[in-house]
Order: sequence, then structure tokens, then C-alpha cells
Amino acid sequence: MNIAIVGATGLVGRTFLQILDERNISIDRLYLYASKRSAGTVVTFQDQSYTVMETTTANIIDKDIDIALFSAGSTVSTTFARDFVSIGAVVIDNSSAFRMDPQVPLVVPEVNPDDVLQHQGIIANPNCSTIQSVVPLTVVQHLWDIKRVDYTTYQAVSGSGQQGIDDFDRTAEGESPQLYPYPIYNNVIPQIDRFESTNFTFEEHKMIQETQKILHKPDLAVSATCVRVPVKHAHSVSMIIELIKEPDLERLREQLHATPGIEVIDDPEQQQYPMPLFAANQDAIVVGRIRKDLYNPCLLHMFCSADNIRKGAALNAIQILEVVDKKILRK
Amino acid sequence: MNIAIVGATGLVGRTFLQILDERNISIDRLYLYASKRSAGTVVTFQDQSYTVMETTTANIIDKDIDIALFSAGSTVSTTFARDFVSIGAVVIDNSSAFRMDPQVPLVVPEVNPDDVLQHQGIIANPNCSTIQSVVPLTVVQHLWDIKRVDYTTYQAVSGSGQQGIDDFDRTAEGESPQLYPYPIYNNVIPQIDRFESTNFTFEEHKMIQETQKILHKPDLAVSATCVRVPVKHAHSVSMIIELIKEPDLERLREQLHATPGIEVIDDPEQQQYPMPLFAANQDAIVVGRIRKDLYNPCLLHMFCSADNIRKGAALNAIQILEVVDKKILRK
Repeated sequence: MNIAIVGATGLVGRTFLQILDERNISIDRLYLYASKRSAGTVVTFQDQSYTVMETTTANIIDKDIDIALFSAGSTVSTTFARDFVSIGAVVIDNSSAFRMDPQVPLVVPEVNPDDVLQHQGIIANPNCSTIQSVVPLTVVQHLWDIKRVDYTTYQAVSGSGQQGIDDFDRTAEGESPQLYPYPIYNNVIPQIDRFESTNFTFEEHKMIQETQKILHKPDLAVSATCVRVPVKHAHSVSMIIELIKEPDLERLREQLHATPGIEVIDDPEQQQYPMPLFAANQDAIVVGRIRKDLYNPCLLHMFCSADNIRKGAALNAIQILEVVDKKILRK
Repeated sequence: MNIAIVGATGLVGRTFLQILDERNISIDRLYLYASKRSAGTVVTFQDQSYTVMETTTANIIDKDIDIALFSAGSTVSTTFARDFVSIGAVVIDNSSAFRMDPQVPLVVPEVNPDDVLQHQGIIANPNCSTIQSVVPLTVVQHLWDIKRVDYTTYQAVSGSGQQGIDDFDRTAEGESPQLYPYPIYNNVIPQIDRFESTNFTFEEHKMIQETQKILHKPDLAVSATCVRVPVKHAHSVSMIIELIKEPDLERLREQLHATPGIEVIDDPEQQQYPMPLFAANQDAIVVGRIRKDLYNPCLLHMFCSADNIRKGAALNAIQILEVVDKKILRK
């Protein structure tokens, strides 16, 4: 398999390389792309040196590439994804550029792997908070139909890449923020991405619309309140899920336990529950605080934490790559 | 007015003194109590020196005291509140010891000031997250009847007093936590207080039951998910409120603006919304992110931040003191 990485020097780009190595994905040729500023950087991968190229059409269209992993922001995706498609590559894009395009599958391999078969060159990787929420949500959905979901998030600064981590460190030292509108250290900021005319943020709209698309439930009632917290790695999401019938929590816990990609940590007596501390640098989505509402027996409360750079971005994209390899390239 | 403060050397105790001074409350005699360890400390208040006494029955029952402000934990309140009542003092207690006692009014002066008239010696100050939530909630409730409230919190470490702040600093330096079960720095902990058999925590039960009691709606459906975040001062609460009819947001904003104790900061275009940064060291509860749900027009979303030591504890207790002074002592 010949693989290209666009945004290879960024936080997600570097994690792509780490996970490709961890999962022993056999690579014939590897092409690394980044902005002009990072071009020329030499990156070592599996004892071989690669020089990062500038992302330009000329540098793309003369290559033989099967899969291109993008994580360089929406503008770069919009500008260069079609160049890779034109040479026959499948693009797996981590930006929000194509996610809601009806021609583009939006895939979480534990949830809707077969959607990759509908691709027309581009497959989108969902928003980080969406990914970690829809995996446990799908387990619930398979047991009892879902009427409504309310998300409230605790999102780490690494969701904004290295710049977010730098802004945490900078404001911890008492300096002015350069990325976020306010210091994130010792603060929480209830704004992620721009505001829409609804007074929900674009991040909140992403969680709502992407959940509907991934679950194939375009009319599902979803709400989100997305909040940045002073945590470096791993997002947490508190969820309230309204079901058509009263859930059996023991059955739910069993099903969650049996689901690849989920680790149930839910033992209140032993003070065991999901936290960034348990989720950072892990592949699993940690799920816990599972309980029934005290007033509406059809309401389920859950809390989940996951590494937003791994399962929320690079890992999910590489799991999509594995599905594409198995279901499309090898057929 | 003769005032006693029990827990005078703690974070809330010291803030009692600061707010008594700020609000020019005329004090004839001031008695300061604390644990044996802190007894003997000399505290200066309005240019006079006071020696802190150990909290013992003997040190209480020979005094002439009108109002005793307690903030020294439930055990101290349970042990000594009745001693103050026996000498004719009104106790205003910041612990959770008496809050759900049907004989004890639970008061937020902006919401249910007249409940103080029912007192039998003890008046309870609600939980910090409850206080900042019920003030804006009452504004909503006066406009349209409320069917249900879902709280999700972002609670500062000062909610655990100086020990919480110390645990933040300690774990920021890479040392092991001494108060919380896990490092709070660079983490969020979805447990505040012990777990109950419902798998909700005691803190979550407090928010639920206290909201019902303060609003005089014992059957109101309420849920809470309470989470400690690495912020030193000011709690934030994300609320979803279900109404019996569709709200008029302009009318709501006007009413919130007109309510003493509330500051509306809600201008998405200018990136203005509630945050600990805006609420710390302020008296006002900051309310914003006001928006209608995208799928259920009777659902209202709001976010509020407030200083948990001021409005969430010391300020609210002293506002109760002012109500008691006006409605009871001066009659």
C-alpha cells in the first residue's frame, strides 16, 4: 500500500505515523506533505528517512498513491483532496470540509464500516467528540431505539493541535493567549469554533449533524454544549440519552464490555469512572457513570473519555484505512 | 448586631469577614470560632483584633449572639448549631447538615427570602452549584412553568476549600493528590462527594433535592452530573430546561437583566459568554449561551458561572443574614 500523509508534521500527522507503526500496516511507499514552512523537514519512520514535501498539485499528481490521510485543516483539504482523487487515491480526511457532503461517507469503523463502500474518492473522519460519543451510543441504539441525545463536553486543548497545548502552557505562565480568545489555564471556555446564527457553535452543530449522519438517523433530536477545559489530552462527554423504553443497565454494561474499542470503567464504590487521566494515550473509549435518571426511567446518563488525538482523530482515520484496505483495495 | 463566625479561619470564614466589611454591616460584637488547631489565631477586622476561640459549648453558651454564621463542615454544624440556638441566636449554616430538614428553611435571597420566617433557629445556605443555578432558573420559572432541569457542572477546586486549591497546586507540581482521589491538574473528575446507591453522587442529589426545595416544587424532575475541573475559583453550570411552552428569549433576557444578582453576558458575535474568568471575585451570577433547542422548541439551554466562595457560599449566607436582620430582628 502506498500512503500519503498531508499535514505530516502536525500533532495528528505525527500520530498517524506512530499508529501506522504500532498496527504494523505494511507500507510500500510513504509520501509526507506539509505546508511550505515545514517542507524539507526530515522524518524518520521505521528506520527510513523521509523528506517532507510542500503540499502542491505538482508534488501530488506524479505519484502512485493508494490512500491519502489528511489532517491539515479544511482549506488544505478543500484545495488538494481532489488532486489525490484524480490519481486514483482514496482520501481519508480529518477536517470538517467534506463531512456533511452527501457524496462523502462519514465513518466510525465500530459503527458504520460499510459506509466506506459508497465512497467517491473521499471518506471523512468525524469530529473528535462525535467519534467517542457515537461508539457507546450505537451500543445503546442496538439494544433500544434512541429518541434524543444531549451532549455536554469537556474538551482538551490538544483538540486545537499543538497550538492549543502551547496556549495552555503560555497562559499557565501568565502570558496572553494567542489561539483562544481567553486564557484557558484556570478557566473553561464555552465556545469551540465559530458561532452560528442559531447561537449554537459550529462545533455543537458538528456533534449534532455528524451523530445523525453516522447513525443514519437524520431526524434524531440531538443537542450539544461544547466547552474547552484546561486539560491537555483526552476529551470527556457527559450524555443524557432518551430511549423509547426503560433500559436494562446490566445488559447495557455487558454489551459495552463486549464492544471492541470500548473499556467500561464504572465502579463507583472503588471510585472508578472515566477521566482524561485514564483515557490519554489509550486507544479505548472509556465509558462509565452509567445510571438511570431518577425521574424518567427511559433516560440514561453516561460519561465517556477518550484520547482526542488517537480515537478522536488519527486512530479512527487509520481504522478507516484498514477497512478500505480490506473491503475495497483487496477486492 | 452581635455576630459569631464558626470556621472563621477557613476560606469561606475569611470571606464572611471580607463581605461583612464590604457591605458595611454594623456589628456590635464579633466572636470568631475555629477548630482547636486554629484557636488562638489573631484576626484583624475593621482595625480591631480578635482572638479566635475553640468551638466548644462552654465558649458559646455564655455569649450574647444574634446570628451565627457556620462554615466548618457538617460535623461541626451538627455538634454546635443547637448551642447557638439555645442562647437565642439564629444559625445560618453553610454545610449540608440541615439543608433537607423540613424544619429548616433553605434560602437564596433572590428566590425565596420569605422562607426565613419559618425558621426554628437554623437556616441553611444551599450548595454552591445549586445557588447559582436556581437564581436564573427562578427567572425562567416566573415566565413559564418548568417541567424538567438537567444540570452538568464544571466545579472549581475552591469548592473543597483551601485543601482543594492546595491539591490543584500540588498535582500541578507532579506530586500525589492528598484530597481528591486523583490529580485534578490536567484532569476532570466526575465525582464530587460520595456515591449514593442510585449511582448519582451526594453532590448530584444535593443539586436535585435543593432545587426542588428552594423552588417549592418537590416533584420537579431534575438531574445533575457534577464534575470537578482544574479551575481555582468559580463554578460553571450548563443547564437544559424543559418548559411547558415555547419561551420568548428576548423577554427572558430582559427579565434576567432586570434581576439583582444576575449579569447577562451573552453576545456570541463578540465572543462574550459566562466563564470562571469573568465570575471569579465577583458577586454576580453570570448568565449566557441562552438559546432554544434545535429540535424541541420548549427546551432552553443556558450556561452560568459564579464565584462559588462568594455567591455560592459566603455572600449568599450574608444576604440571608441581611434578610433575617430586616424581617426578623428589627420587627
